Amino acid sequence: MPPAIKLYELTGADDELRFSPHCWKIRMALLHKGLDAERIPWRFTEKDVIAFSGGTTVPVLVVGDTALTDSWRIANYLEEHYGDRPALFGPAEGKAYARFVNAYADTALVAPLRHLLTLEILARVHEKDRAYFRASREARFGQPLEAHAGDPATHLASFRAALAPLRAVLGDQPFLAGNAPAYADYCAFGVFMWARCVSPLDLLETTDPVHGWRERLLDAFGGHARAAASAQRNAA
Amino acid sequence: MPPAIKLYELTGADDELRFSPHCWKIRMALLHKGLDAERIPWRFTEKDVIAFSGGTTVPVLVVGDTALTDSWRIANYLEEHYGDRPALFGPAEGKAYARFVNAYADTALVAPLRHLLTLEILARVHEKDRAYFRASREARFGQPLEAHAGDPATHLASFRAALAPLRAVLGDQPFLAGNAPAYADYCAFGVFMWARCVSPLDLLETTDPVHGWRERLLDAFGGHARAAASAQRNAA
Repeated sequence: MPPAIKLYELTGADDELRFSPHCWKIRMALLHKGLDAERIPWRFTEKDVIAFSGGTTVPVLVVGDTALTDSWRIANYLEEHYGDRPALFGPAEGKAYARFVNAYADTALVAPLRHLLTLEILARVHEKDRAYFRASREARFGQPLEAHAGDPATHLASFRAALAPLRAVLGDQPFLAGNAPAYADYCAFGVFMWARCVSPLDLLETTDPVHGWRERLLDAFGGHARAAASAQRNAA
Repeated sequence: MPPAIKLYELTGADDELRFSPHCWKIRMALLHKGLDAERIPWRFTEKDVIAFSGGTTVPVLVVGDTALTDSWRIANYLEEHYGDRPALFGPAEGKAYARFVNAYADTALVAPLRHLLTLEILARVHEKDRAYFRASREARFGQPLEAHAGDPATHLASFRAALAPLRAVLGDQPFLAGNAPAYADYCAFGVFMWARCVSPLDLLETTDPVHGWRERLLDAFGGHARAAASAQRNAA
């Protein structure tokens, strides 16, 4: 008989109210695997009840003698230990992943960066483009470019916070696509090249996994992007 | 002899200054495919120069008699027409994709939503958790929960804007993982269940591709999540 599974779930005043997004991830993962679990209500202040897990938050999953915290670790455990059940991860379409990263880069990364870069770009566009660039961007942003620039430190902090998805993946593997780069990587890297070509700003701490990844892409294809950015900065 | 390839790239005052993130995506994609291209400088106001493409922005890729705009369409064209070259998309690790979506959901989606949901949650937690919940969240947010709630319409608009990556993929296929859901889907869906369990707010327009996806996941596994949320709302 397989070991019994217990899932501690964040619960509201009513015992049926189980609202944690992280507990829901695991609840769906258990259904996906076709695994039954005893779902145990747990409240914020019942830290002592889950102290055995070594953690202070739910979900906590207990399988026999094993206690696990953190939804990502739990999902990985389920995938490894129930390999005969439907795959939670499995192979994905690289195209869907790239499409997701592309839309993320064009929105979540571009939004904070454009505050930092727009005046830099204005200074570097061709003279004949200058009036067009200012007018079209001021219409888009709904404010003068100088006001839109705002406080650089705030926008840099927002940009770095927005890198969380890149950071999570690049803490595990050298490129978004795996051991070698592919279009998912180029979609995010394009945004870094945009910045690098027009601004001397240090976007990344050297301890950030995203920094190492950017270095690898600057070096790819014989250092093509690194050389291009250097030539551009010298020209500017 | 294969047809010549031309890439129109956004260019600054100096001819070498090519700073568009979208042009960089394609420049890296061409290197990845090992394809040579003539890179043609193009300025914002030279709309007439690329009018033949049917578009008004770069990148514009020309291959023989074919002119293409939009970096995503161009990447797909390269992948289809140069299938003997290294794959731009190819199969991806479902695990990396799920990890990316997970971190995106926990940051980009949770950030605007928690403004909308925190007071709703406060009203629904167990009485013994109420003081802990308020104190811990006010410390995290650096302000009283009532101030943090702010203007709901603004936060709802931010949340809907943050859905761009989901919307891009779900416009092409029924689930993030493909034709059937997997952990990438559950990571994002967990955030919607968090909202659904505590708030009657309509987060999605019915015309949004994300709405159809959420419906499919509410119906999955015999309608498990839909039934749970209904029970929870009735109890609340």
